Amino acid sequence: MPEHEYFDPGYPELLIENFKSQKTMRWLGANLTDLKPGYAEVTLPWREEFTQQSESVHGGLLATIADNAGGYAAWTLEPNDSNILAVEFKINLLAEAKGDPIIARGHVVKHGRTLTVSRIDIYSVEDGKEILCAIMQQTLICIRK
Amino acid sequence: MPEHEYFDPGYPELLIENFKSQKTMRWLGANLTDLKPGYAEVTLPWREEFTQQSESVHGGLLATIADNAGGYAAWTLEPNDSNILAVEFKINLLAEAKGDPIIARGHVVKHGRTLTVSRIDIYSVEDGKEILCAIMQQTLICIRK
Amino acid sequence: MPEHEYFDPGYPELLIENFKSQKTMRWLGANLTDLKPGYAEVTLPWREEFTQQSESVHGGLLATIADNAGGYAAWTLEPNDSNILAVEFKINLLAEAKGDPIIARGHVVKHGRTLTVSRIDIYSVEDGKEILCAIMQQTLICIRK
Amino acid sequence: MPEHEYFDPGYPELLIENFKSQKTMRWLGANLTDLKPGYAEVTLPWREEFTQQSESVHGGLLATIADNAGGYAAWTLEPNDSNILAVEFKINLLAEAKGDPIIARGHVVKHGRTLTVSRIDIYSVEDGKEILCAIMQQTLICIRK
Repeated sequence: MPEHEYFDPGYPELLIENFKSQKTMRWLGANLTDLKPGYAEVTLPWREEFTQQSESVHGGLLATIADNAGGYAAWTLEPNDSNILAVEFKINLLAEAKGDPIIARGHVVKHGRTLTVSRIDIYSVEDGKEILCAIMQQTLICIRK
Repeated sequence: MPEHEYFDPGYPELLIENFKSQKTMRWLGANLTDLKPGYAEVTLPWREEFTQQSESVHGGLLATIADNAGGYAAWTLEPNDSNILAVEFKINLLAEAKGDPIIARGHVVKHGRTLTVSRIDIYSVEDGKEILCAIMQQTLICIRK
Repeated sequence: MPEHEYFDPGYPELLIENFKSQKTMRWLGANLTDLKPGYAEVTLPWREEFTQQSESVHGGLLATIADNAGGYAAWTLEPNDSNILAVEFKINLLAEAKGDPIIARGHVVKHGRTLTVSRIDIYSVEDGKEILCAIMQQTLICIRK
Repeated sequence: MPEHEYFDPGYPELLIENFKSQKTMRWLGANLTDLKPGYAEVTLPWREEFTQQSESVHGGLLATIADNAGGYAAWTLEPNDSNILAVEFKINLLAEAKGDPIIARGHVVKHGRTLTVSRIDIYSVEDGKEILCAIMQQTLICIRK
């Protein structure tokens, strides 16, 4: 993984506040549980509403927190007042996500002037053990003010 | 688009019931609003909880209903008691999704013995006009009993 | 599909010349066989060198011509002296590509100010019949001078 | 990365022979330069025919060797007489690939009974330094005899 530095010395506090203001994350009960330059971790406590017929969390919700993990990882490298938008993402669902919590860890692979690319690993924590349940590759665009 | 036929003459009633039992869809308030052989439409009324800082629905939630649209499109071609699982999907976010409702329309492009591939178009309905806000390409696996 | 118009009235001649100067396309023997605003078709005569153990053309080479079909479809909407680069693409391989020729047809789905998204269908022509052998979803960036 | 073991004690010799029989790889001049359980490295010497207008290798050709790196990584975990096919792949192009050689390194992330998922990193070697020029996420299917 490449070496990164925070764009803004005021991080991570600013981004943690920003994350809390995301309505979807609040509604899901997801938290930004770790942040480093080029890296973000989002944790989602399991809830029955997230599941389908089985007890496994819906792949779209895994994608939702993974998308944020990759996006905030990118945001650590950009001005706080810029807008980071996902251009696209692709996720492989590898195993059932029945654990509690679900953890998405996003790493910036390439930080470009306009586009940034992240890889995100999503884990289901079962009996204290992390099981890799999905992986994502994501493209982001930074709109600076 | 290829010609398809329902696997089960009892469709679409069986699949409509099945969809209603999906906890995530019920929780989101999403409905299966159309079903034909190799085709499914999922409609999601806009809610503020689905949005981020702006009023646009989170890309992960667009992916969640698109994933179901593609999956149910595939399910029309498979036994009712089989299990259709998304292997992976890739979504491009094309425009803000501020409309009400959001509509995902999934088409089976290739129905294989093990794997099926769908394309899904996601529209945001603004002032009665459908705006294409995302497109998905998805791989599904069918586990037959 | 959305309505598009050529950016440059001198198209398609300019783009056809441009395509011929692409070393990879010339080397493969691929031709730009159709061009409309927001649309391009690339045709590749089958050669044994393109195949793996079976007679099917390598998925990476299907991707190579599909990438160009999507890129030239986008280029019809941009200045001739701009640079169109693929940001990423995702391809599903649906069926063996043993036909002659292979045809990739790219359509612009969304033409944005910076980013453009295309969908590409790849056909294998067997006994005069077109078989859909792969589909691609692609993101492009336009660097204008 | 997960721990893996060769399926067949006769690897890697068998797979190296197999790789050499791939017509596309031979034609491109690509070599299988490293092999471990769940891992394969494919090296491609730069040639002008691989480039477009600039000196950068065509993204589709990067995808071609990356597809093989991911596929052979999977093959180390499967019987020699099985057939490993790419179901789909998605590649992000991160930087120009003007180096010599180009190296694709594929790792199996999840080895399943039917489907296997690999991640592949593609490097361009410039002045002896490896520059990450593309990353891929790939789904493979194993057809056992």
